[in-house]
Amino acid sequence: MNNPTAFPLSQVRIEHGFLAERARLVRDTVIPYQWEALNDRIEGAERSGCVHNFQVAAGEKAGEFHGLFWQDSDLAKWIEAASYRLATHPAPALEAELDRLIATITRAQQKDGYLNTYFQLVEPQNRWANLRDCHELYVAGHFIEAGVAHFYATGKRTLLVVVSRLADLIDATFGPGLGQTPGYCGHEEIELALIKLARATKVARYRELAEYFISQRGHAPNYFETEARRRGENGKLPWHMHHDGLATLQAARPVQELTEPVGHAVRMMYLLAAMIDLAKDGSTATSADHCRQLWTAITTRHLYVTGGVGTEPYGEKFCEPFDLPPDRAYAETCAGIGVMMCARRMLDLELHAGHADVMERALYNNVLAGLSLDGRTFFYVNPLEVVPAVAKRRYECHLVKTQRVPWFGCACCPPNIARLLASLGDYAFTRTPDGVAVHLYVGGAIRFTAESVPVTLQITTEYPWQERVELAMSATKPATFALQLRLPGWCRHPHLTLNGQPFALEPVHGYVRLQRTWLPGDKVTLDLPMPVERVHADSRVAAAAGQVALQRGPVVYCVEQVDNGAHLSALSLPRSAVLKSHFVPDLLGGCVIIEGQAVRTESSGPLYGTEPAPTTGVRLCAVPYALWANRGEGEMRVWIRES
Amino acid sequence: MNNPTAFPLSQVRIEHGFLAERARLVRDTVIPYQWEALNDRIEGAERSGCVHNFQVAAGEKAGEFHGLFWQDSDLAKWIEAASYRLATHPAPALEAELDRLIATITRAQQKDGYLNTYFQLVEPQNRWANLRDCHELYVAGHFIEAGVAHFYATGKRTLLVVVSRLADLIDATFGPGLGQTPGYCGHEEIELALIKLARATKVARYRELAEYFISQRGHAPNYFETEARRRGENGKLPWHMHHDGLATLQAARPVQELTEPVGHAVRMMYLLAAMIDLAKDGSTATSADHCRQLWTAITTRHLYVTGGVGTEPYGEKFCEPFDLPPDRAYAETCAGIGVMMCARRMLDLELHAGHADVMERALYNNVLAGLSLDGRTFFYVNPLEVVPAVAKRRYECHLVKTQRVPWFGCACCPPNIARLLASLGDYAFTRTPDGVAVHLYVGGAIRFTAESVPVTLQITTEYPWQERVELAMSATKPATFALQLRLPGWCRHPHLTLNGQPFALEPVHGYVRLQRTWLPGDKVTLDLPMPVERVHADSRVAAAAGQVALQRGPVVYCVEQVDNGAHLSALSLPRSAVLKSHFVPDLLGGCVIIEGQAVRTESSGPLYGTEPAPTTGVRLCAVPYALWANRGEGEMRVWIRES
Repeated sequence: MNNPTAFPLSQVRIEHGFLAERARLVRDTVIPYQWEALNDRIEGAERSGCVHNFQVAAGEKAGEFHGLFWQDSDLAKWIEAASYRLATHPAPALEAELDRLIATITRAQQKDGYLNTYFQLVEPQNRWANLRDCHELYVAGHFIEAGVAHFYATGKRTLLVVVSRLADLIDATFGPGLGQTPGYCGHEEIELALIKLARATKVARYRELAEYFISQRGHAPNYFETEARRRGENGKLPWHMHHDGLATLQAARPVQELTEPVGHAVRMMYLLAAMIDLAKDGSTATSADHCRQLWTAITTRHLYVTGGVGTEPYGEKFCEPFDLPPDRAYAETCAGIGVMMCARRMLDLELHAGHADVMERALYNNVLAGLSLDGRTFFYVNPLEVVPAVAKRRYECHLVKTQRVPWFGCACCPPNIARLLASLGDYAFTRTPDGVAVHLYVGGAIRFTAESVPVTLQITTEYPWQERVELAMSATKPATFALQLRLPGWCRHPHLTLNGQPFALEPVHGYVRLQRTWLPGDKVTLDLPMPVERVHADSRVAAAAGQVALQRGPVVYCVEQVDNGAHLSALSLPRSAVLKSHFVPDLLGGCVIIEGQAVRTESSGPLYGTEPAPTTGVRLCAVPYALWANRGEGEMRVWIRES
Repeated sequence: MNNPTAFPLSQVRIEHGFLAERARLVRDTVIPYQWEALNDRIEGAERSGCVHNFQVAAGEKAGEFHGLFWQDSDLAKWIEAASYRLATHPAPALEAELDRLIATITRAQQKDGYLNTYFQLVEPQNRWANLRDCHELYVAGHFIEAGVAHFYATGKRTLLVVVSRLADLIDATFGPGLGQTPGYCGHEEIELALIKLARATKVARYRELAEYFISQRGHAPNYFETEARRRGENGKLPWHMHHDGLATLQAARPVQELTEPVGHAVRMMYLLAAMIDLAKDGSTATSADHCRQLWTAITTRHLYVTGGVGTEPYGEKFCEPFDLPPDRAYAETCAGIGVMMCARRMLDLELHAGHADVMERALYNNVLAGLSLDGRTFFYVNPLEVVPAVAKRRYECHLVKTQRVPWFGCACCPPNIARLLASLGDYAFTRTPDGVAVHLYVGGAIRFTAESVPVTLQITTEYPWQERVELAMSATKPATFALQLRLPGWCRHPHLTLNGQPFALEPVHGYVRLQRTWLPGDKVTLDLPMPVERVHADSRVAAAAGQVALQRGPVVYCVEQVDNGAHLSALSLPRSAVLKSHFVPDLLGGCVIIEGQAVRTESSGPLYGTEPAPTTGVRLCAVPYALWANRGEGEMRVWIRES
């Protein structure tokens, strides 16, 4: 990987356990399935048109553009996912398929480097004319990410050359110079992509362009207003900008003045990701303090317990602090991935386990919920409470799906999950100045070199279902390095042994540091007790008042109708109820469930009465939130009333 | 009044106590204020244009139409309110003002009887061309109600003649005959108005036309579809019909097939009101059983504890049974008035105190909330929970006002409250075959004749703040009649004395019947103990799970930020807490408040934590819901968590 703190994906193997199974599903099913979807070969799914559009733009076939302005980006994210897959699990057929696709893309690219099939095929006269709405630079950013990923995975420069030419065109077009456009994209993405490109190519001006885009954003005169006047618009903004105006795009005022997250959640997270990258690279366009301020605001006032962000269906936006309604959650899968992207980058800035806690929360809950167990259907919106009849009925829930679907007209999320799960190794481990830090516990191995000694760190665990993580060092000779292990914030009593001897934990910012000369065969055993916890939200979260979420380890649970009957809101959990967890091998692919004695309030007769309704004792069964809606349609809820 | 069970308004005086004060406010402030509003003379209020439009249509001034299709109806409802005011409290200046206005309206009416300033001034070519959306017959209905009210109040036929000509035109235009249009209005209202007109004029064909409109509604071929095709529409329905399609207008299938309320709440209630009227009049177009079925569905599955209906902001509609979210309540003031209209009519069908219970619940809570203490500002939407920052921020709350406003672009509610409160006497008492039934306890008097003996029944009470109601008979000689008194459903232990002697209560359907020869000076004392009650909703009401509403007598309470601090969701009420009520003369015009010891959950530090947050004991102060938002902007909620 191009991030200086990242290990190349090829050095990380995620081989067994829960996440490995999800990653395998992505390799074996999701990536091939999405290729079919992008080629419009999935019956009953919304048409993608992605490959078709490039073939038409390349002159390989006749036809018309299909889809939205940003349709190309679905394909770009898939190329990125497929490239990560090649990095970890070479596959000649897939590589050849990618080569053919890249050849088509190369043919589709215009002479001056421009690449965007919508504008090439539909509105060639309006190139760069509506940066506010049309996602042109966003699409370019995803292609740049794809080009960089493909280069790292295969060593081939075929796509890197294409996207560098595109970046050069953008660099020539935008900026403060004479004849340049002082604009930036309505949907951030190009910024973080340019930083990746700069790191991969060592061409500093790509980073400088990212700095320019971020510094320019929201400054007066506002570019989006200038641009709208040029288009002859009357000042009326699109509906999704209701209430926030240009703050929907983080462009109402300079980025430097932001103190709370604003606007469209994915955009905000992608902007912050680029800002953290710049802070890491020592740019003066932003600061670590400012990044930390925004990250803290997001994670302490705007985060769902599932790690999702974005609470407003209209415009997919951040709302008021602590306004986290479960039924109208937007919590888009892409936004959850954005949370992971920022968390991972915050770990680059500073090794604080709290950042990894948020990353893990988003991964195991909001993000994994986006993908069905069979890898063929997806969620875009991830609410924390669904009553199907109500969700289908109420307009403010009209984007909530009560079942995952095969594809979307706006299909940003499915390939985003694919690229995330195909590059999990980059989130699990980082390179530190003197060794390795482990953030996520996955069954597999990481290879690295410690003072010229090649080392393999083998990790054996059934996390998150089991509490034990075993790490074994193998090398041909002793190796000196620091192994830093995250002690998860959810774990009250972690326990660590080194070669069987208890090791006193003196964690720094939540990481225990084992700095020593390791001998081949050295073993570290980390036990992370995972009792069932009742999680309470801050009392300012009105939607969770008097309720608890059940959590075990990093996994947040929910109750589903299939296990607990309808009218889940009638369930309550006595404070005294004992909750037990156990692994059920044949449920939902094998998972730990939580059971306990709960209370159900019966229907009392009158709609409103003065006698408390009778209650009956019932068995409560909770399953991991990420695995909900894999057994047909029904009610689901995360927050359970305490009684 | 024209209803055979109603006493003429002039025979009912509502003179002291809480409702009398509200009625006085309507007489002295609201009606004059609204006249100013309808004349566009209120600074800072949305422009009405109503009087202006008629003056233009009458050729009295030049100008253009202002407002919505149904703008005229605001004026019609005001005329109705002003007429009721003349019936109870003659006022020569107001009567003269009405005469001048009616002269203008008469001049504005077209030769053939047509009367609708929008279509006369803006789209004369499109008369009756879009019954689905344009409210033409709805507006006509309100004028007919106004004409009937003005006739009963003043004995003058000036407006009755105008509206009869309009009704004659409608009768000639619509129907099954050759050359007639088989249509009906997208917004019901004309039906109940035609029945009033039939009762007032004894012209049966007006009732038959109402029957036709109701019988025709939703029958195939669907008139609204035929009409839309004729307009060249592509089949796309207006946004407010999302999900329900023509069921938004109760027109997706024949009215006879309805088993649950559907669609726009005000329309549904106005439809049902007409159906009950027809059932009462012995029509075969509907049946008492069907009316009772719909009424029961509404009151047992779709009613807010405040008596409001309509839970869906998009289209102001009924939703799923038991889906009664407090923050997104629509609970339009007009819909609450519609509940009262139906309840009152159900009492015509059958003397069941349950109907009056619903009427009283809607009046004292949802409806009265629509009017500020000073009579100059109004609510259209009446949510049960408001957090101002969130309500202003979230799109699904964009119709919620956090403070009452001086007027609305669509100002249906303000004159609707005025006509309701100006005709309260019609809701309080009904004429029975052998006497009088009292449904609402108001301080005042009713005059009637019992076997030729003129009787005055004087009622002295400070209801709903005090528990005692005293009824005293005065007449020149003994009079034989049955006095039926409602025993409210909320009252567990009513107590009645007749001339000081306890009277055994043997209520029939919730009414105690005192049938005797009354002597002048006879006194009945009814005590209705009003302890503070904790009201629980049916367990299927998810939004109220684990919570209680406080109620004392008919009055539902809420907590406001001004008394209880911000973050009201952090308050909870221990099951063991003692709640006390007392009258506070200088608060909110004088009202009973509820106080008790509650618990406030403190902010706990982390957004999500495993330790329950600390709590502190606090004094809870609840005020009548109808009086909320009279002390500045702040949070409010009705449902309070029990702990």
